[in-house]
Amino acid sequence: MGKVILTGDRPTGPLHLGHYVGSLKARAEMQHTHTQYVMVADAQALTDHAKEPEKVRKNITEVCLDYLGVGLDPDVSTLFIQSQIPELFELTAYYLNLVTWNRLKHNPTVKQEIVQKGFGDAVPAGFMVYPVSQAADITAFKADLVPVGEDQRPMIEQTNEIVDKFNNTYHTGVLVRCEAHIPKMARLPGIDGQAKMSKTLGNAIYLSDDPDTIAKKVKKMYTDPGHIRVEDPGKIEGNMVFTYLDLFGTDIQKIEELKAHYQKGGLGDMVCKKYLIDVMLAFLEPIQIKRAEYTPEDAWDILQKGSEKARMRAAATLSEVKAAMGINYSILTTQNSG
Amino acid sequence: MGKVILTGDRPTGPLHLGHYVGSLKARAEMQHTHTQYVMVADAQALTDHAKEPEKVRKNITEVCLDYLGVGLDPDVSTLFIQSQIPELFELTAYYLNLVTWNRLKHNPTVKQEIVQKGFGDAVPAGFMVYPVSQAADITAFKADLVPVGEDQRPMIEQTNEIVDKFNNTYHTGVLVRCEAHIPKMARLPGIDGQAKMSKTLGNAIYLSDDPDTIAKKVKKMYTDPGHIRVEDPGKIEGNMVFTYLDLFGTDIQKIEELKAHYQKGGLGDMVCKKYLIDVMLAFLEPIQIKRAEYTPEDAWDILQKGSEKARMRAAATLSEVKAAMGINYSILTTQNSG
Repeated sequence: MGKVILTGDRPTGPLHLGHYVGSLKARAEMQHTHTQYVMVADAQALTDHAKEPEKVRKNITEVCLDYLGVGLDPDVSTLFIQSQIPELFELTAYYLNLVTWNRLKHNPTVKQEIVQKGFGDAVPAGFMVYPVSQAADITAFKADLVPVGEDQRPMIEQTNEIVDKFNNTYHTGVLVRCEAHIPKMARLPGIDGQAKMSKTLGNAIYLSDDPDTIAKKVKKMYTDPGHIRVEDPGKIEGNMVFTYLDLFGTDIQKIEELKAHYQKGGLGDMVCKKYLIDVMLAFLEPIQIKRAEYTPEDAWDILQKGSEKARMRAAATLSEVKAAMGINYSILTTQNSG
Repeated sequence: MGKVILTGDRPTGPLHLGHYVGSLKARAEMQHTHTQYVMVADAQALTDHAKEPEKVRKNITEVCLDYLGVGLDPDVSTLFIQSQIPELFELTAYYLNLVTWNRLKHNPTVKQEIVQKGFGDAVPAGFMVYPVSQAADITAFKADLVPVGEDQRPMIEQTNEIVDKFNNTYHTGVLVRCEAHIPKMARLPGIDGQAKMSKTLGNAIYLSDDPDTIAKKVKKMYTDPGHIRVEDPGKIEGNMVFTYLDLFGTDIQKIEELKAHYQKGGLGDMVCKKYLIDVMLAFLEPIQIKRAEYTPEDAWDILQKGSEKARMRAAATLSEVKAAMGINYSILTTQNSG
């Protein structure tokens, strides 16, 4: 089955088009050529949502239904919940001894997120150490391919540092190095034109948005602020309507015609937006139909089965890790008394 | 059974007289009036001995045999190995989200130990977070009494902060506050006269030292550097021979006579040391006889049974913790589909 992929999402909200473009699409394709583990990272979500476990819990179902909607096949991909794999916590504890406090402080991704999240001086310790927890996630499944955005590269470096340190310290080859898989189109801009679609920025279209919400969001989409009168020529660069049409439309000829007309002048934003609404509804309809085939109970059932399977894999790795460290006492004692 | 005690030791070497005076003696007494959990803290030992798991593993047996030697009764006290209780790692992960990185940086005990251990800039992250791991150990068993030295008080404060933060955040009373139990005689000075007997300082008499080693160590004990000729008057304050005679001798009258004679002059160090050798051998003999009743295999067996019992207790607490956080999904799903 080729390489092993570990991927996943923090269940702090339903998934949006940014997730689709950045990773879900690739996952649905790659699941047929790779061994793919897809983790709902609830424990990681709690590192900066400790006060909102209920929100995390609710979104586990939403995220799983989103996965199913975009075509992740639970018979092919292993969909599981991070906190259901206690082995990951134990691996994290052992890896924490192989990483210095200073190294964690200087993780560029974490530093940036601390600013973004406005933690100030109150950064939760769990948040500071989450790169080590990610290393546990990745290595537990011996993943050698991890789809991440460009800004997450330092996480892969941190994981590989731990892999090397562990293998060197315990004279073993148990842990496997991984490489980042950076998607071609890493980031979908938000409907407001900001570089990244994100829940926090409030500029997202969710996979589960109903048609009215989608229409409303498209109508307030950022276009060309200089395009004031219909007869004015308009810009298509940085104009979200055309960015989205390029990504989600299928009638390339029609889109090219609209672009030419818009640039020449005489084409109003609302006409383009109405067409984009049709395009988005057509794009999201099959996802939502598929999503609706499953109940929340189905989602829990799938996650529970997946978690059992994932746990067996992680337990096997933990067992190898402890053997390499020479702290697999139960086996040692059996050997002693045997 | 009165209060619940959690206590234990890092298995980085066999236990010495300092451990006996500071805590083992009290444990042997308190086990009959309290519910006592005694933890061999191997995972904690690995936070600063990541490169020496073999040393940690070997000393698990030594420490357990020392426990048995001083009279810890495995039918009364629960003797267990920290790493055999995976629930402790999971609790640690959740607690890490309730403590700030800055708070950990300012733990006075940890700051002092960082200097002592000469980590420099390379403090392992696992070492920095070990106070949170200790909070997991203590709260997992709902211990309300924790025997610690005066220098470990900040650890108890850290645990209680986590208890309060958890209970407030999740509107629960699941976690139990604890108090420090500071022994009357917290510290036995080393044979070299330094304030603390410690393996690192190389000034310890081990519970398992053989008679020759004990004699050798007593002979080089720090006495009164001003007491040069036998006929000179000698000081007994700060003189280790008399400190130890006071603590381990039983013939109080004889000891008082020796003290008076030494202070007056005319009593040589070697005479006193020879008597102390007899006293120490008499003190350690029953401990070593009892210790020798058990094989290393017996020790593993006891620790395994104790770990099973401890694990059930910790699992019950983790289950309550997850219920309080609302992340006990397996139960939730059962209820959903029920």
